[in-house]
Amino acid sequence: MAKILVINCGSSSLKYEVYEMPEKKSLGKGLVERIGEGVGIISQESLKGKHSEEAPIPDHRKAMELVRKALTDGKAGIIGSMDEIAAAGHRVVHGGEFYAESVIIDGKVLETVDKCSELAPLHNPPNITGIKETINLLGKKPQVAVFDTAFHQTLPPAAYLYGIPRELYDKYRIRRYGFHGTSHRYVAAEVLNMLKRSEENTSVISCHLGNGASVTAVRNGKSVDTSMGFTPLEGLVMGTRSGDIDPAVLLYLLKRGYNEAKLDKLLNKQSGMLGLSGVSNDMRDIEKAAAEGNKNAQEALDVYAYRIRKYIGAYAANLPKTDAILFTGGIGQNSVSTRAKICEGLEGIGIILDPKKNEATGRKAGIISADYSPVAIAVVITNEELQIAIDTYDLAFKK
Amino acid sequence: MAKILVINCGSSSLKYEVYEMPEKKSLGKGLVERIGEGVGIISQESLKGKHSEEAPIPDHRKAMELVRKALTDGKAGIIGSMDEIAAAGHRVVHGGEFYAESVIIDGKVLETVDKCSELAPLHNPPNITGIKETINLLGKKPQVAVFDTAFHQTLPPAAYLYGIPRELYDKYRIRRYGFHGTSHRYVAAEVLNMLKRSEENTSVISCHLGNGASVTAVRNGKSVDTSMGFTPLEGLVMGTRSGDIDPAVLLYLLKRGYNEAKLDKLLNKQSGMLGLSGVSNDMRDIEKAAAEGNKNAQEALDVYAYRIRKYIGAYAANLPKTDAILFTGGIGQNSVSTRAKICEGLEGIGIILDPKKNEATGRKAGIISADYSPVAIAVVITNEELQIAIDTYDLAFKK
Repeated sequence: MAKILVINCGSSSLKYEVYEMPEKKSLGKGLVERIGEGVGIISQESLKGKHSEEAPIPDHRKAMELVRKALTDGKAGIIGSMDEIAAAGHRVVHGGEFYAESVIIDGKVLETVDKCSELAPLHNPPNITGIKETINLLGKKPQVAVFDTAFHQTLPPAAYLYGIPRELYDKYRIRRYGFHGTSHRYVAAEVLNMLKRSEENTSVISCHLGNGASVTAVRNGKSVDTSMGFTPLEGLVMGTRSGDIDPAVLLYLLKRGYNEAKLDKLLNKQSGMLGLSGVSNDMRDIEKAAAEGNKNAQEALDVYAYRIRKYIGAYAANLPKTDAILFTGGIGQNSVSTRAKICEGLEGIGIILDPKKNEATGRKAGIISADYSPVAIAVVITNEELQIAIDTYDLAFKK
Repeated sequence: MAKILVINCGSSSLKYEVYEMPEKKSLGKGLVERIGEGVGIISQESLKGKHSEEAPIPDHRKAMELVRKALTDGKAGIIGSMDEIAAAGHRVVHGGEFYAESVIIDGKVLETVDKCSELAPLHNPPNITGIKETINLLGKKPQVAVFDTAFHQTLPPAAYLYGIPRELYDKYRIRRYGFHGTSHRYVAAEVLNMLKRSEENTSVISCHLGNGASVTAVRNGKSVDTSMGFTPLEGLVMGTRSGDIDPAVLLYLLKRGYNEAKLDKLLNKQSGMLGLSGVSNDMRDIEKAAAEGNKNAQEALDVYAYRIRKYIGAYAANLPKTDAILFTGGIGQNSVSTRAKICEGLEGIGIILDPKKNEATGRKAGIISADYSPVAIAVVITNEELQIAIDTYDLAFKK
């Protein structure tokens, strides 16, 4: 039995959770927000109760100090003392072509993750800071890096190469990496449990639909294609991200006074469902507006579902036989109407929803396809933190 | 009976052909090359023989004068005098959202085509020049504009909207237009003849594979989605064009010293099969290199076929039932091996090639699917010039 601390460190936030392994039991979790932004806040929920504190949090060191205090808080803490933590697992966004699976962190790994910052300049540096501050806190206890990209390192060249000169791959490693890998790996395994099937000869199309969103084709347990690419901008239309677009649109806008920074902001922050609907990046607001007759909101919903169907079809065409598609992530798990809208029209390729099962399943996990559907449709609850805890426990204590 | 002159005018070239309508009989055709580049050349083939001439061709007016001379040449000409030409039809690349079908050209049409130059700055201006020089030659005889984009004006918003702010559509008309429309329209009708089916309740996926390449989904005779977008850069990996790519790749390169002009050249001229293979933009050269063990050439072929399969699947997922897929264009019509490679693995969605029929059909039109294939596979010979002649004849003499 071992308590694993899971850390997901962003530039101005830090999420954490403690798991008891191998029981897979969450003992509590918390979130530090507004790091480096004047007054920050830490909020935590444990079996013993809630705890929150506002304080100046100038940097991640201070954030980690607050985490330690909250974890061991006499009244609402998660553990008695830090000694109880046996190991820590970290979400790391980009592992480049270096990591196809999770890894015990040492100096060499930290160097390599730092090298990958080139490919994820907004994400890898705070991930590294989080690791260093945790080393500061836990000393020599084992720590594990779990990469968003690792699951997709099994993509074949046909799926990961872009149609650009080889030199750009050789020099800059420009290729499809894919993200959300920890989630897709977790739910692709979960759906096999639900369907009582083994990885072998099973093909699954996994739709992770949150504010960020991606579709992954999983064959024999391995990722063979995914819709996010060199960065998380490619693929589906997301909350504020454009997803796929004619690259010449960028050239057109560059000629009309846009520069790199403005394009980056446009495509990553102002586009997607927010830009299309003109209403919000939140699916619930958009559905409400559409129901009230807002045409742009309705068309945004149409585009959203259409693009997901395109990816489902693109992957189905390249799998020997699709056994299941699954929905997960905030929207995939919670929006009955979005699932229904996506599946509308997929009957032609053997994906047949049972609307009543979809309604009845609601926000829970479950099978929502018609009994006679050639392809099973499932709702799966993702849990990246648990997957990180599993990997950490396995690498630190089971080899 | 009427003789129709078909004109396809580019910035430094001018293709022409004369059709006898309604017999759909080609009387001869020719090509003027290197207009405005010192010494140019005109070459023509007719029923009476070949004719060619080198001469300084400073501009399109001079080119058209050479066309008139060649057409009426006593020895190898196509017609006795220009009076025999009853009407002319022009290929025009971009009709924006103004034209969903071909149209008789008048002053207003010329103005509108000029307005669309914004969207096709390299193509529409020479198209307009060609029209003006033909008016100069034929006077008040009817002339018709046939747009590459027109066939795709039936796309629903879900297929033509990008996931970007509405303002960009409202202000700049940034959306998916699609190209190769005249070809897709022609072959989608041809395949119905081959299959003895009507447009109604028939869905066809049309793969036009030439140096430029696009896939179009045709439902009930109407285009419902197509892989080229705002420009002909989007979609499949082509001879020298990248096709789909994470838009953030452009942002990444902009940060590393690329500018708009360099990116444009990179993605339009140096990418695609040329860039990936490092060998050539010609499929035959790449296949030869791959057969000799060139790994980059082999991977380029893998990417090429994989991307086409993705589009076939994406469209199949959004059609009620796919009745036929067809191959046309230089590569689609001529490369038995490319057709075989694309179809490999599509069995899972009911598209089953008969390798022997594929071999036997070779460069001819024909059905190449297995007898038991749920989806028919066809090779169709495209003929954009004939389609332009048909539209011209219909609009000028049949209304």
